[in-house]
Amino acid sequence: MDPEAFLDMANQVIKLKMFPYFDIAHSLLCAIAVREDLGSGAQGFSRKHPLACWLSTMLMIFSGGMVANGLLGEPILAPLKNTPQLLVGTIVWYLVFYTPFDIGYKVGKFLPFKIIASAMKEIYRCKKIHDGVTHAAKLYPNAYIIMIIIGTLKGNGAGFTKLLERLIRGAWTPTAMEFMQPSFYTKASVVASIIFVLDKKTDLISAPHALVYFGIVIFLVYFKLSSILLGIHDPFVPFENLFCALFLGGIWDSLAKLLGKGQAKEETKDVKKTN
Amino acid sequence: MDPEAFLDMANQVIKLKMFPYFDIAHSLLCAIAVREDLGSGAQGFSRKHPLACWLSTMLMIFSGGMVANGLLGEPILAPLKNTPQLLVGTIVWYLVFYTPFDIGYKVGKFLPFKIIASAMKEIYRCKKIHDGVTHAAKLYPNAYIIMIIIGTLKGNGAGFTKLLERLIRGAWTPTAMEFMQPSFYTKASVVASIIFVLDKKTDLISAPHALVYFGIVIFLVYFKLSSILLGIHDPFVPFENLFCALFLGGIWDSLAKLLGKGQAKEETKDVKKTN
Amino acid sequence: MDPEAFLDMANQVIKLKMFPYFDIAHSLLCAIAVREDLGSGAQGFSRKHPLACWLSTMLMIFSGGMVANGLLGEPILAPLKNTPQLLVGTIVWYLVFYTPFDIGYKVGKFLPFKIIASAMKEIYRCKKIHDGVTHAAKLYPNAYIIMIIIGTLKGNGAGFTKLLERLIRGAWTPTAMEFMQPSFYTKASVVASIIFVLDKKTDLISAPHALVYFGIVIFLVYFKLSSILLGIHDPFVPFENLFCALFLGGIWDSLAKLLGKGQAKEETKDVKKTN
Repeated sequence: MDPEAFLDMANQVIKLKMFPYFDIAHSLLCAIAVREDLGSGAQGFSRKHPLACWLSTMLMIFSGGMVANGLLGEPILAPLKNTPQLLVGTIVWYLVFYTPFDIGYKVGKFLPFKIIASAMKEIYRCKKIHDGVTHAAKLYPNAYIIMIIIGTLKGNGAGFTKLLERLIRGAWTPTAMEFMQPSFYTKASVVASIIFVLDKKTDLISAPHALVYFGIVIFLVYFKLSSILLGIHDPFVPFENLFCALFLGGIWDSLAKLLGKGQAKEETKDVKKTN
Repeated sequence: MDPEAFLDMANQVIKLKMFPYFDIAHSLLCAIAVREDLGSGAQGFSRKHPLACWLSTMLMIFSGGMVANGLLGEPILAPLKNTPQLLVGTIVWYLVFYTPFDIGYKVGKFLPFKIIASAMKEIYRCKKIHDGVTHAAKLYPNAYIIMIIIGTLKGNGAGFTKLLERLIRGAWTPTAMEFMQPSFYTKASVVASIIFVLDKKTDLISAPHALVYFGIVIFLVYFKLSSILLGIHDPFVPFENLFCALFLGGIWDSLAKLLGKGQAKEETKDVKKTN
Repeated sequence: MDPEAFLDMANQVIKLKMFPYFDIAHSLLCAIAVREDLGSGAQGFSRKHPLACWLSTMLMIFSGGMVANGLLGEPILAPLKNTPQLLVGTIVWYLVFYTPFDIGYKVGKFLPFKIIASAMKEIYRCKKIHDGVTHAAKLYPNAYIIMIIIGTLKGNGAGFTKLLERLIRGAWTPTAMEFMQPSFYTKASVVASIIFVLDKKTDLISAPHALVYFGIVIFLVYFKLSSILLGIHDPFVPFENLFCALFLGGIWDSLAKLLGKGQAKEETKDVKKTN
């Protein structure tokens, strides 16, 4: 491919207008996720508790902005002031849950449609991560960790509000904490945030900004599609295992076990506690 | 009744000073609600855990302002800076829980007394809803949904902090979520907020502002009293049922069932899941 | 002891630089607390869920500032912008959880080392309470209760975020609410906050500010050390019992019981409920 055409394309991706098509795709996938989280009782639940249903869908759609605002001392409700976006979300929610003969839901689940919506959502995600990092960098120019946290929350806010969103629907699942088993989206958002921070704050990345952005878009879309089509769910696992083995005790634990010390250590500790 | 005298009365209601009598009535009903929520163990609990008891009562009294502030990015603790109001709340809490031979609680539960306090609380609620809508309208002049949310939270904040308030007392009841089964107060606050928004932002309501306000006061007081005296708990139910039947799937679901499609659909979905 | 030398010492304590030694001591005790809270599964948990482990440790280390910021409408994440402090916390966390043969943890638990770290943490606590009260007094010059709340939260923030911190690790213990059974640290922080408020806002305390501060430091360190060495856990209990007996129903309840009315009262209430 011609490098200049590639850069041109990257420049176009970075300027892509999100409203309304990307918002529709994002809202659609959120509403479907809420519906699937409800399981086989979704039909009944949506009839009995429309308010809780609507509210948890809205929370999922606007989660990134709300959580990030909450942590940065900005108004949590501010994302709702965007009335057109709220309307799009509400219409999509209505179509997914209440259309006659479930047409809306079935169309949304139709594979080709789902693939397009998923790809669009990943492009949207990349924009949100980028906006989050930029916004945090404005507020705290030297706090890299805050930029990464805000970027991640903007990228996969729904993962972190899952407990609250289920609580709105009267279900409480404390073990489903995102931090315990971070999903691929969380990890990808962390990596993307780190790359954006490096690009913005250091000279380590010499490529033009648009190319970095475009690269992350391609990375996110590519893994989303392989997850849907090929069932590859988490390409980070091997790297994580390596890192854990090297730095988080893996090798030393094995060594200690080999030397018969690990066993002994655990025992003394237990004995101490019983005494 | 003479219309001019009526308008005059409305103008007086709108200028009513809330402190201290209305605050006393509000605090009293909140403290009694906390005590009744504790059930038969209230006496013992208040002796063993006075701090948790005081804190959950204060949270209930100031819930509206605190939650609204939290969602608007304003200091959550700000309502507590009103020291006289805090003192009134504390004195009322003390009287309800700790007076010898339970005199305070018994007086508060005495029917004529309770009716007056309830009516005053509804007048107070109306003022809080109005203040909430006005405040949100100042911050976000075009975000109708935020005005309605803030108005509702100010009107029935205690309903939304119930989970937290119980958690302070060491009880966790995730299914008691207000959104699942909104109480009459929540619904009335939503309706009142919508009317205030229409009055403020559109030309649909031609009556003078004081009359609109007075009408809502009458509506709230009337239904509160019928709830205490006649046991009518929720006049919104028939409208809700109609709305749900028309727009939230009711009719279509029945139709689908009649055609034998609803049944089949559910089955296919279940089968898909098991595979 | 020479009073002038004493005042001199007090003036030096008040100007003590906290970073990095006091931060190290604080982080060390927090990391050890997280590890002990995990119980015998700590080793396994830290290997399987390093992110949740790191996050809950950071939450514990920065809890005071985060909670206080959240309640005052300031950015919750702001404490994290102090990158050196964050680095110290992360290094200490790593040493406590992941050093080969558990050297870090064992050194941290070694008694003389633990005593020094605990004493330093109490000095740090005093500074944080003082800063909290001062900060709240700037924002709300007349709201004594807010100064006390913020001082307490800064002093023992970890107690109040315990539920959230455990939730991050996938454990939910609603009955472990700090308000139900306030720990000694919470009570001591309340007392210290009240003394600072009296010192700052009234003329009741005539001693120089540095002496008041030094007195609280001595009080905190003294009781911490007696707790570790002598097992005295809560010197406030007798005062609390006296206060409860006098003001929170104790005497009246006994009187009512003696008169045979307390029993009767409970019964009538129960009968009313069953009817």
